Amino acid sequence: MSDEVLNDISHRRFNPLRGSWILVSPHRTKRPWQGQQEAPSANVLPQYDPSCYLCPGNKRAQGDVNPQYENTFIFVNDYSAVKEKQAEYNPEVQDDSLSSRLLQVTPVTGKCYVLTFSSAHNLTLADLPPASILPIIHTWTHLYTLHLSPSSPLAAVHDATLPPPSYHGAFSRPEAQLRYMQIFENKGAAMGCSNPHPHGQVWTTSALPEEPSMELASLSTYRHEHGGAHMLEDYCALESEKKERVVFENAAFLACCPWWATWPFEVMIASKGHKRALVDLDEGERMMLAQAIAEVTRRYDNLFRTQFPYSMGIHQAPLEGPADQIESSHLHLHFYPPLLRSATVRKFLVGYELLAEPQRDITPEQAAARLRDCGGELYRKHL
Amino acid sequence: MSDEVLNDISHRRFNPLRGSWILVSPHRTKRPWQGQQEAPSANVLPQYDPSCYLCPGNKRAQGDVNPQYENTFIFVNDYSAVKEKQAEYNPEVQDDSLSSRLLQVTPVTGKCYVLTFSSAHNLTLADLPPASILPIIHTWTHLYTLHLSPSSPLAAVHDATLPPPSYHGAFSRPEAQLRYMQIFENKGAAMGCSNPHPHGQVWTTSALPEEPSMELASLSTYRHEHGGAHMLEDYCALESEKKERVVFENAAFLACCPWWATWPFEVMIASKGHKRALVDLDEGERMMLAQAIAEVTRRYDNLFRTQFPYSMGIHQAPLEGPADQIESSHLHLHFYPPLLRSATVRKFLVGYELLAEPQRDITPEQAAARLRDCGGELYRKHL
Ligand SMILES: O=P(O)(O)O[C@H]1O[C@H](CO)[C@@H](O)[C@H](O)[C@H]1O
Ligand SMILES: O=P(O)(O)O[C@H]1O[C@H](CO)[C@@H](O)[C@H](O)[C@H]1O
Repeated sequence: MSDEVLNDISHRRFNPLRGSWILVSPHRTKRPWQGQQEAPSANVLPQYDPSCYLCPGNKRAQGDVNPQYENTFIFVNDYSAVKEKQAEYNPEVQDDSLSSRLLQVTPVTGKCYVLTFSSAHNLTLADLPPASILPIIHTWTHLYTLHLSPSSPLAAVHDATLPPPSYHGAFSRPEAQLRYMQIFENKGAAMGCSNPHPHGQVWTTSALPEEPSMELASLSTYRHEHGGAHMLEDYCALESEKKERVVFENAAFLACCPWWATWPFEVMIASKGHKRALVDLDEGERMMLAQAIAEVTRRYDNLFRTQFPYSMGIHQAPLEGPADQIESSHLHLHFYPPLLRSATVRKFLVGYELLAEPQRDITPEQAAARLRDCGGELYRKHL
Repeated sequence: MSDEVLNDISHRRFNPLRGSWILVSPHRTKRPWQGQQEAPSANVLPQYDPSCYLCPGNKRAQGDVNPQYENTFIFVNDYSAVKEKQAEYNPEVQDDSLSSRLLQVTPVTGKCYVLTFSSAHNLTLADLPPASILPIIHTWTHLYTLHLSPSSPLAAVHDATLPPPSYHGAFSRPEAQLRYMQIFENKGAAMGCSNPHPHGQVWTTSALPEEPSMELASLSTYRHEHGGAHMLEDYCALESEKKERVVFENAAFLACCPWWATWPFEVMIASKGHKRALVDLDEGERMMLAQAIAEVTRRYDNLFRTQFPYSMGIHQAPLEGPADQIESSHLHLHFYPPLLRSATVRKFLVGYELLAEPQRDITPEQAAARLRDCGGELYRKHL
């Protein structure tokens, strides 16, 4: 830590990616905890569960039967938050009435997918070797490519090293061009996951959502203010030199607890070089991303010897948008895990955090040091 | 509902107070729930608990003994997130190095208080008649006044109807002027509350936090763009006329599920007339605020016949700031409750919500209708 004094005083740190501040109170970890305890997650699941709606060969809630898939399997969410077709809606004429000013609304269409990570009911990302995470990255890349606008500069990218699709599941390009694809995973009951079979989701919408929109604005401003430099390229170089917040790095990716982390053990995996989206990676880089994901998720599980819950997601270029926005995009992944002190005590982002400003107790430097120390083999036997 | 079609389609609504969008997917309530269940909160607590660190006469974690207080009791948090005095910290010189650009930091001082709502261990806001909520509002008002900058126009406000302080607890004005006071309550284990004795918190900081800062910017812009009109005054008038999102109203306050609500049963209580802060209220208005708080919390508990968890907080004028900011401020309270379907199934604001954009299932109109129907007596007997 360059500034030891920050371990003991309350301070605010700036998140240049979102353009917002967070409050850090390191001395507050001494507080006793008498509140809610999470149920520690069951570590022993069968490889196949006949009642699971994601296992191969099983029936889903609305009657469809899953294929006998091997690696990944992808299907349109049976309870999609956004749909391709819906009743038309034309809000009233926008005049200067109070309604037009204060009750603004716009319809949203889109497509939501579910993507299993493996056919085994009990193999999480932490259990998989990088070579088995690679097919997931291939599937994400194919899905992203399929939804890209033909007018995007990214539509012209052709990586000869990308293997042809190997996932199961039939799906087609939406009729209307969509704007943004959010790939994410909710892992663990504490993060709202309702099925332990390892899977992620993909919500693709006609609107550019708030978080990527804020980030893209910051990335673009930085590029214009600093002679074309990319913020996250600069940031990776800085962290890689300082080391104190780095959790893991290889030639293509850096995993760190960012300076501005909100969640106790929040991690960002960013491409060290400027990559706008998954399609900009070659096979060697995809393998290094798989390795970074394996290293982060394994360290998470090792930290409290539990199935560490988190929400994880990929930020990358929108499917369609102004050239400047696409060129300013920078591929990175956020991991937002709630646990703070043990497998059963989480950080609550509640009252002050919701009403005033996010607040954290341990510093990102302390979190990174602990995650560095958790490296190596997964604490539980591979199955 | 003016536009029935919004009950069936996905759409985005704009929050003019924060300046951000949220995604609404009403059809998604049909989704089955197999995920985490919250423990229903114990409804039977004793009136006095010898092991509670908030009950009168008991010893606290760091050795202090609570007085035999009657209504409210206030003390400096034994584990404050911000403190009045801490080591000095002067960040490195701000040059154009990557560190100065990307690792921005500023020290924060302040003062955190805990405020019990009543001497009884088992009387929540929902259990208290408005006349017993009034002393809490008096205490908030005194505390706010004590911390006001002498240079604020609000320091000159003198309400002859405000009774003299009746709370227990000795505390003094901080030596250095602070910028903002966040009054809030975390209720229930699901919202990170670690002691069921009804209490709120007050965090007062040298920095203006993110949320009030965004709101103040929006309020000020609205005022300047619309000839001096106040956004929340206009909004209350509009909702009071439309009725579909109103939960309760009296002459001075309106409680509604706002058009842009994120949490399933989110409620905002706003002053109908322009009031900058608690000090702008007279005794009649304070009583009407007490009534609005009672009506909202009682309906919450009635909805699922449980101790309904929530985070609640007051937004009002900063303690110190530019005259325009103080004049644009508008007193209102936010209630953010997590429950969605029952006393045990909550809405998770996780993956998509954290990485892309807040998303809700039931519409605010549906939520308001259900809360309106829950009016009347509290479902459980008063003690
Ligand atoms: O201070 P408490 O009640 O122990 O703590 C609770 O409220 C705080 C303010 O919202 C949060 O930072 C904590 O995560 C939460 O557990
Ligand atoms: O779609 P799922 O996994 O049932 O639902 C989960 O993830 C969604 C996307 O983050 C959230 O909106 C839900 O609240 C959560 O329970």
